[in-house]
Amino acid sequence: MVFLLGSLVSLSYAALVVWVALLARPRPLAPGARRTQVVIVGGGFGGVFAGIELEKALEGRADVEVTLVSRENYFVFQPMLPEVISGTIGLTDVVSPLRRLLPRTSIHVREVESVDLERKTVWLAPGAHPHAHPVPFDHLIVAPGTVTDFRGLPGLPEHALPFKNLADALEVRSRVIHALDEADIESEDRALQRQLLTFVVAGGGFSGVEVVAELNDFVREVAKSYRRIDPRDVRVVLVHAGDRILPEVTEKLGHYAQRLLQARGVELKLNARLQSASGDRAVLSDGSVLETKTLISTIPSSPHPLVEALPVPKSRGKIQVDRSMRVEGHPGVWSLGDCALVPTASGAPCPPTAQHAVRQARTLAANLVATVDGKALTTFDFAGLGKMGALGRQNAVAEILGFNISGFLAWFIWRTIYLAKLPGWGRRAKVAASWTFDLFLPPELVQLRLGGTAGASHQRFEAGETVFRQGDLGDRIYIVLAGQAQVVREQAGKEEVLARVGPGEFFGEMALLSSAPRNASVRCLEATTVLGIPKREFGLLAANLPGLKATFEDVMRMRAGTQPAAEERN
Amino acid sequence: MVFLLGSLVSLSYAALVVWVALLARPRPLAPGARRTQVVIVGGGFGGVFAGIELEKALEGRADVEVTLVSRENYFVFQPMLPEVISGTIGLTDVVSPLRRLLPRTSIHVREVESVDLERKTVWLAPGAHPHAHPVPFDHLIVAPGTVTDFRGLPGLPEHALPFKNLADALEVRSRVIHALDEADIESEDRALQRQLLTFVVAGGGFSGVEVVAELNDFVREVAKSYRRIDPRDVRVVLVHAGDRILPEVTEKLGHYAQRLLQARGVELKLNARLQSASGDRAVLSDGSVLETKTLISTIPSSPHPLVEALPVPKSRGKIQVDRSMRVEGHPGVWSLGDCALVPTASGAPCPPTAQHAVRQARTLAANLVATVDGKALTTFDFAGLGKMGALGRQNAVAEILGFNISGFLAWFIWRTIYLAKLPGWGRRAKVAASWTFDLFLPPELVQLRLGGTAGASHQRFEAGETVFRQGDLGDRIYIVLAGQAQVVREQAGKEEVLARVGPGEFFGEMALLSSAPRNASVRCLEATTVLGIPKREFGLLAANLPGLKATFEDVMRMRAGTQPAAEERN
Repeated sequence: MVFLLGSLVSLSYAALVVWVALLARPRPLAPGARRTQVVIVGGGFGGVFAGIELEKALEGRADVEVTLVSRENYFVFQPMLPEVISGTIGLTDVVSPLRRLLPRTSIHVREVESVDLERKTVWLAPGAHPHAHPVPFDHLIVAPGTVTDFRGLPGLPEHALPFKNLADALEVRSRVIHALDEADIESEDRALQRQLLTFVVAGGGFSGVEVVAELNDFVREVAKSYRRIDPRDVRVVLVHAGDRILPEVTEKLGHYAQRLLQARGVELKLNARLQSASGDRAVLSDGSVLETKTLISTIPSSPHPLVEALPVPKSRGKIQVDRSMRVEGHPGVWSLGDCALVPTASGAPCPPTAQHAVRQARTLAANLVATVDGKALTTFDFAGLGKMGALGRQNAVAEILGFNISGFLAWFIWRTIYLAKLPGWGRRAKVAASWTFDLFLPPELVQLRLGGTAGASHQRFEAGETVFRQGDLGDRIYIVLAGQAQVVREQAGKEEVLARVGPGEFFGEMALLSSAPRNASVRCLEATTVLGIPKREFGLLAANLPGLKATFEDVMRMRAGTQPAAEERN
Repeated sequence: MVFLLGSLVSLSYAALVVWVALLARPRPLAPGARRTQVVIVGGGFGGVFAGIELEKALEGRADVEVTLVSRENYFVFQPMLPEVISGTIGLTDVVSPLRRLLPRTSIHVREVESVDLERKTVWLAPGAHPHAHPVPFDHLIVAPGTVTDFRGLPGLPEHALPFKNLADALEVRSRVIHALDEADIESEDRALQRQLLTFVVAGGGFSGVEVVAELNDFVREVAKSYRRIDPRDVRVVLVHAGDRILPEVTEKLGHYAQRLLQARGVELKLNARLQSASGDRAVLSDGSVLETKTLISTIPSSPHPLVEALPVPKSRGKIQVDRSMRVEGHPGVWSLGDCALVPTASGAPCPPTAQHAVRQARTLAANLVATVDGKALTTFDFAGLGKMGALGRQNAVAEILGFNISGFLAWFIWRTIYLAKLPGWGRRAKVAASWTFDLFLPPELVQLRLGGTAGASHQRFEAGETVFRQGDLGDRIYIVLAGQAQVVREQAGKEEVLARVGPGEFFGEMALLSSAPRNASVRCLEATTVLGIPKREFGLLAANLPGLKATFEDVMRMRAGTQPAAEERN
């Protein structure tokens, strides 16, 4: 019955798609005319809806040309992003290709290198060929949003996973499945297995709560498919700085969400912040340590580097605009979304949510066209309709038009509203179908590996942690960037300290060059950051960089006195 | 109507899934008993179906334990892999999680490091912790399949895309969309745009033909969404060594496929082999050169390194087994699938197809269990039912039980048969739904970037090709591994040769260290291979490896005499 209904709906969607596609065919532009160039920077809610509103406002006009620059060729529908973790929705259905959303806009899929406000030019980063590409503008809409910035939190840049775009969500999914696969193999090392089965999410706002709810449901469900994992060993922890989660909603709803998450097995760490991390643990501000290999952080959001570099009036890192969405002192420059500070009628700044960005886009587009046409501007005024957060399978909390709703009803409203807001009828039909299948089918267990660990990378260790153990396989060489570590060898049950290594020194080269297992362990005496260079990479460089090879050979000879050669061990 | 039908089918599938799930619940094993250990190496048709047949044959028995080792945690349903390019099927629906297919088998998602036949142990490559993991066996089933091996074809390892697993298919999809996105931006450089819009597939067997058909349909359809691409500039080329494509089927069907592909815009290059490649072109054996940035090769297939290393009787790189699927001289060692040479009743070796692997699995599992139980063995005997190849939208060729079929009917049979063969009812329902949506919705344009270009990598250039141009942005430094190139500066319309660089020398460091554009071009005098180290990577290494930094500074000082410093240019 659900299927039949879904199909009827799908069929009418399909008819609508054809109709919309016919409507959306681009019209020819008048040749030769000098066109006003509008450039939008950013492919999130702000940028994309600015484009959609401009296309509507400029329907049939050929005197204004709109270009949108985005890092990805798709728009991410953020509210559904956590569902990528469990694969409830098809992986590409949570995003929409920009070219389909904006058929009359030129889409440039590139990073922005810099913006020159004086010469009115956006410079694109190199693409297929390594030359910078200029895009001139008359009007500029700045909407790159914010970035996750872990600087200042030791170990987070190296070891915490952000959760902002599709690649992040896929990476989280891939890492979670990988941890389960490994936990199944390492069933004899109980400590390692428990560490692999511990998943930590930092940040108890909507974003963190939605991620932890989805992650918890997914891990506990699929853990049953692993023969050597005891589902009771699975530990999912939410770390939050406040004394209750979901500060965005009323206390009652927040507590409801807490009880629900706890009942489903999520452990809450309140009044605690994530302070530092290594590849093996997360350290909290209350001194507690969580042994984990999977750490996701939804905080903090920092200004986008592009916004940081832009010489315009800013407040708390955000671009100050007036109630017409203009950047003061820079005619033709506009901003909206999470990177902009937009005043509301009450004087308070507009919160950084999708519903506000969409309304800002409407005001901005109308005002931009009015400016081109020399007409009067309007002002932004929108109070917000409500707030919603999903809590995993068939549960949610919502504050809508002053009403508090929780449980199945809130979840049903959540799905209905977001399905309606999802751009494109085809996509809506697909998501509706996926949700229907999800009622009957077990969650998807396929791991999509994203590669990307080929190069040299930073790693951080807390005091007392081990970089590698005697007997391990030598898969990389390390250079100490900061901190102190000692090289320790165990023989006949006794430990001997062979050497100390500090900044600028390297270790681990012996096993690498001789392909033998590590003949000693390296343990950190204080918090230590190293640069790890994988075997393949190091081989390429050592073979081809004369200076590098000579340096290592010198050191090897020198150490041969203090450490027995790898061949002599046993 | 189609939807209603699809839904009814889906609903009955769903009911079946529940039923199958109930059937498939693992039974408790008798405690303490010495169990026979069977280890399967490989997660393709051979390995997975051997596992499925063993689970069936061992239903309810606790004396035999089966472990399967696979690189990926899923089984790829190869016949549908080309559909990943266009995204017709959900990206994860073309693969099945191994744990769902084999609920009573231990799955180890790892690479195999080595196999020790004497000590009867499979060594797994390191995972979460860098130590090797031994898996002992009484019976070993070797089924890693073949690998794509571009060695011996200059430039192919660096620049050609293989098409064997899900990651390959996603990479092809991602590269194709990236090429279109770039062609849209670079609309003013016509030569570059045409190069970006040229897609070359090498290999005219089933695999290559299915890929080129799917690619051609996809590119021509989505090119319409790009405002600055003229769809007539799109060029899709199939290169094949024989004088007609699809040598697997009759001449009549082969010619039918050729005419069809040509009518859809695919260019055929017959009697030509791919000889070498660079990042900018493919060179064929007939001397012709195809300017392209997207080169896919479905040939050649080489023995898996694991099979190469195994000291067992081999013939043409394949493991020689008898008609009972045993490896001679090694009791307890079995092999099947593409890596095995299986004799048939007629004496001819069994062809490397999925339908044969599935039948081999049945014989092998029965014989393995018979060996454990001390019973008589059976022999493999299967003649093959037919051959099928899809030719893109609603067309295919098939030879079934002696009949030649082509066109819509063949395509319908193709879909029906493969849908039935796809493992898992849930997955079948999803694929059926995806195919239904595909009738109404435009193809998916979302680009999933897979990263993975972080480290140093090899690049190859043909004689006369340019590594970089004066004025380009400096994004990497190069070390010449083989060949000769010259550094050329253009000034006032005249070219001056500044230097020649050969093996062991490097270039491109100037712009990198000073962040200025390249002050000269580098052009290859002969076929040249270089190691390119990206800016970020090089920065990390130069900052932390004392020898490296000093070497470069020396060379910089030396060159300052022959080349003006970057600051002085203009």
